[in-house]
Amino acid sequence: MSQGVPRPYALSEDERLTLRRVALGEEEADLFLRGGTVVNVYSGELVEANVAVRGGRIAYVGPEERCVGSETEMIEAGGGYVCPGLIEPHSHAYLGYNPASLAEAVLPGGTTTIVSDDLVFSLVGGAGTSRAVMDACSQLPVRFLWYARPEPASPLAENGERFGRERLGRVLDHPLAVGVGEAPAWVRFLSEESGGAYGAAIAEAESRGAVVDGHTTGARGPRLTALAASGLRSCHEATTAEEALERLRLGLWTPLRHSSVRPDLPELLRLLTEKEADTRRVLLTTDGPSPDAVAERGYVDGLLRLLVEAGVPPVKAIQMATINAATYLKLDDHLGGVAPGRLADMLLLDDLDSFRPSRVISGGVIRARDGELTGAPPVLDQDALGRGVEFSGGDWISAPALYKAHRSPETPVIEFVSDVITRAGAPPNASEALPEGHLHAAHVDRHGTRVVHALVSGFAPGLTGLATTATSSGDLLVLGREPEAMALAARRVCEMGGGVAVADSGVVSWEAALPLAGIMSAGGFPEAVRFARGLKSCLRDAGFPFEDPLYSLLFLTADFLPGPRLTSSGVLDVAGGKLLSGTEAMEH
Amino acid sequence: MSQGVPRPYALSEDERLTLRRVALGEEEADLFLRGGTVVNVYSGELVEANVAVRGGRIAYVGPEERCVGSETEMIEAGGGYVCPGLIEPHSHAYLGYNPASLAEAVLPGGTTTIVSDDLVFSLVGGAGTSRAVMDACSQLPVRFLWYARPEPASPLAENGERFGRERLGRVLDHPLAVGVGEAPAWVRFLSEESGGAYGAAIAEAESRGAVVDGHTTGARGPRLTALAASGLRSCHEATTAEEALERLRLGLWTPLRHSSVRPDLPELLRLLTEKEADTRRVLLTTDGPSPDAVAERGYVDGLLRLLVEAGVPPVKAIQMATINAATYLKLDDHLGGVAPGRLADMLLLDDLDSFRPSRVISGGVIRARDGELTGAPPVLDQDALGRGVEFSGGDWISAPALYKAHRSPETPVIEFVSDVITRAGAPPNASEALPEGHLHAAHVDRHGTRVVHALVSGFAPGLTGLATTATSSGDLLVLGREPEAMALAARRVCEMGGGVAVADSGVVSWEAALPLAGIMSAGGFPEAVRFARGLKSCLRDAGFPFEDPLYSLLFLTADFLPGPRLTSSGVLDVAGGKLLSGTEAMEH
Repeated sequence: MSQGVPRPYALSEDERLTLRRVALGEEEADLFLRGGTVVNVYSGELVEANVAVRGGRIAYVGPEERCVGSETEMIEAGGGYVCPGLIEPHSHAYLGYNPASLAEAVLPGGTTTIVSDDLVFSLVGGAGTSRAVMDACSQLPVRFLWYARPEPASPLAENGERFGRERLGRVLDHPLAVGVGEAPAWVRFLSEESGGAYGAAIAEAESRGAVVDGHTTGARGPRLTALAASGLRSCHEATTAEEALERLRLGLWTPLRHSSVRPDLPELLRLLTEKEADTRRVLLTTDGPSPDAVAERGYVDGLLRLLVEAGVPPVKAIQMATINAATYLKLDDHLGGVAPGRLADMLLLDDLDSFRPSRVISGGVIRARDGELTGAPPVLDQDALGRGVEFSGGDWISAPALYKAHRSPETPVIEFVSDVITRAGAPPNASEALPEGHLHAAHVDRHGTRVVHALVSGFAPGLTGLATTATSSGDLLVLGREPEAMALAARRVCEMGGGVAVADSGVVSWEAALPLAGIMSAGGFPEAVRFARGLKSCLRDAGFPFEDPLYSLLFLTADFLPGPRLTSSGVLDVAGGKLLSGTEAMEH
Repeated sequence: MSQGVPRPYALSEDERLTLRRVALGEEEADLFLRGGTVVNVYSGELVEANVAVRGGRIAYVGPEERCVGSETEMIEAGGGYVCPGLIEPHSHAYLGYNPASLAEAVLPGGTTTIVSDDLVFSLVGGAGTSRAVMDACSQLPVRFLWYARPEPASPLAENGERFGRERLGRVLDHPLAVGVGEAPAWVRFLSEESGGAYGAAIAEAESRGAVVDGHTTGARGPRLTALAASGLRSCHEATTAEEALERLRLGLWTPLRHSSVRPDLPELLRLLTEKEADTRRVLLTTDGPSPDAVAERGYVDGLLRLLVEAGVPPVKAIQMATINAATYLKLDDHLGGVAPGRLADMLLLDDLDSFRPSRVISGGVIRARDGELTGAPPVLDQDALGRGVEFSGGDWISAPALYKAHRSPETPVIEFVSDVITRAGAPPNASEALPEGHLHAAHVDRHGTRVVHALVSGFAPGLTGLATTATSSGDLLVLGREPEAMALAARRVCEMGGGVAVADSGVVSWEAALPLAGIMSAGGFPEAVRFARGLKSCLRDAGFPFEDPLYSLLFLTADFLPGPRLTSSGVLDVAGGKLLSGTEAMEH
């Protein structure tokens, strides 16, 4: 049993002593909820009880009122339900929103804890930036916990700098890191002769008793079994009830996912309604929905609405979003239930089907009432991210020739067949004009030293020029039919210090600054929603036929889905494990 | 997330790689169970599957047979049930038996993991002895895990030496220590102005993410709530279904206890059959039964028989004895289920009601068949305990006058009202002969420097002389009507280097050597049973009216049950928190 950095939320002897005295009625509570019906996720019952809070923790649950004093803030629950705060156990808190604007969005609906990976923060500046962001987020009214991403999501030329060997340990040393998470390149992992970077990360996590949050998209049978034997603690990638049951049986904790790009809950909940599986190791996750999806459907609260509407008993549904997640995280002593000693994260609900809390309490403070925050929207200390995305050098970025991909018969064609799935397209005749439906595509590193070209089809046939830093590599992706428009968009993104720009007819027709790591807006949640809706609108106007362009752009540059991908090392055939083209050195 | 001493059972990258290859059929299994029906404790189902084992771990569970090679040991399960090894989450592996002889007794019935506290080992020699025993027990075929006892069970004069401030951290630093456990003196704890030694121990465990195995006998309402708020993770002390439900609702994991001195399962299982509580946080414990009870009723297997006979569904009952315990211990990645990556601890069962395994596999090795061990009985490396119990000095131990308690009207009278409950008895007239039904009692430290006297009634009215080192203090307890017989018994215990002796008419009429820490026999399990039965027989002959004399003697010297107790600091009124008499210095 290890010793070292304290575990998340460990209390001191004096803090425990104070809780004990409040429970005994020897000291006063800060906050007292009188006359509620507690959703008891431990016994699976609804139990009438008062709840006393002191110093951000629950000190007492029961019939007494002894600890009410003159300074105690009273809430009359009037028989309403007192439910533990909802937990999102697998998120990416940087998809247009940033952790603060995500907190702004989800807190009124009752999500009080979010576990996110640290990919984009480590991409900016390795462990130092990740740890600084973790510190900054610890001040937010939603609790953030973290998975250290074991590998980058795209092969990085300067891997050692940002994702080197020491980084993982330094990130895991942070008291709010609960494990390693999101290592999607399992096909490569299984094919390696050694355990590779992911194997080393699992061993590191395991030696600490930390969580290995897994990812096994599409795996089944012996390969899924091999991944379970490798030390994964969970997989949230089931897309059918049968896939979910196979994972559950193999001992994997199984979050049912309903994201903007994979809204699978209606299918997955057959695991509960038809197969009647034991639900204690079943969780719920939104897995990083786009900002507009959060605005429209809610967050974990939205998943509970779907479950209860489908006939899942409310207490069982709530367990999945609270105590199951807390137990998965090995933090059930602190999170996931309304009981003495737990963090005082609670919702007041009028019923157990709409999941629209009349009050949301986090850390013992009322943070939202009837869907509105009680205070100013939370703000992220942006100094944690340093200076964000910077592009080195001079005019190279404005040169249209840099972006022209239609130059040789060897240039690979990446054809979109869904939001996120690609395949190799037929090569057009290089001597002719760019064929209908095809776009030039260029991946350029931020130092302007290497470019990778491809043609893209099936994406947005009418797009003249788009540039974005919202990529898996953190570098610049430029797409379009017209190199001049592409260059104009790229220049604009560079000027904004990261973001997305669309150019047409010599002007920037739409833009969104994403100055935080090139992927997050710096303002409040409405700004993130404007970004997502604006991007979707621009791309739909250009013929984008799918639902979630943010994920399409993000995954075009990633190395973990089959089909060809545009990475900083070249166009990668992920399933085949080989490069279809290399990089070109840039002269400037 | 802390770093330091590895967590129990953490695997290396290479070990995981091997498991992965076996799962993929690229390497051979050591052991292969073909055609079984797995009790899947994760999904709550019975699932037909083969199970492959390599290096002591389960590598594969499923329909394939690819990893069977020429060297693979085959077991034809023939449709029989493959059940995870049973876990005892709260034991005292030193009650007449020692860890090895306990393993000998319980392994054929299917218990493959035992969590015990380290009280008697730290009493012998502090953290060094505890750690040495933990190392020695790691070689046994039953897995031992450990709770560091936060406080001694009896006030020790030289507390600093064996239970000092650094000890706890050193014990918890051991990789097989999972937390702190068994701190029964909760009344004193709640009355203290500071958190005391127990408060410090909770904070130390909490900072490591370790388990705080609690103990709240008889607490209810605000006091039970205050104990939950203090950071306890569990309580196994409920004696009614209502007490169990109160604990469960407060977020405490709730082992249902059925021990030799508190066989409460028939009452407690109303929690399941009548109250229909969610069972995910309900465990089962035998809580240190006497050796004869283990011989007669079995161990965790015996509890399963009781549950299923009472109508609890078998899979639910098995979950309580396997995955629930593993999850409570935060070790469900390694223990408690038949799934890839788990320790290969499994039972083959012909049915799901008798719980008499046809095979018991621990660490991938067949350890028992049809109720019999396959190899020689396990043996404890006794060097770990050092030289055991030694009494300093010369003839003082043989002087009858030392044991005569009936000497002043102030001598407290300790009256037994049950096996373990005492109250203050009426003082007899000191000038007259020892009244009927009363015994002299003396507690003597091992250095022969301090003696504490009391009279005892309601215990064994005809006992002439008994001496024992099986006490909560580790010191010598001597009882009897005749000081000469008491002295003879004490001398004999001293000669044996610890144990129990009964003397009558100038001869030692019965004796049992307990050379390991003065409380454990050194031989196999039959020797422990002979000891327990012999003691019971002697005491019943002398009029002992209860069931469990081993616990009566142990708790007579403890400081955690109400009523007067005979400790090395004097006769202690535990409920009142004051000494009724002090110690007398011995001259020799």
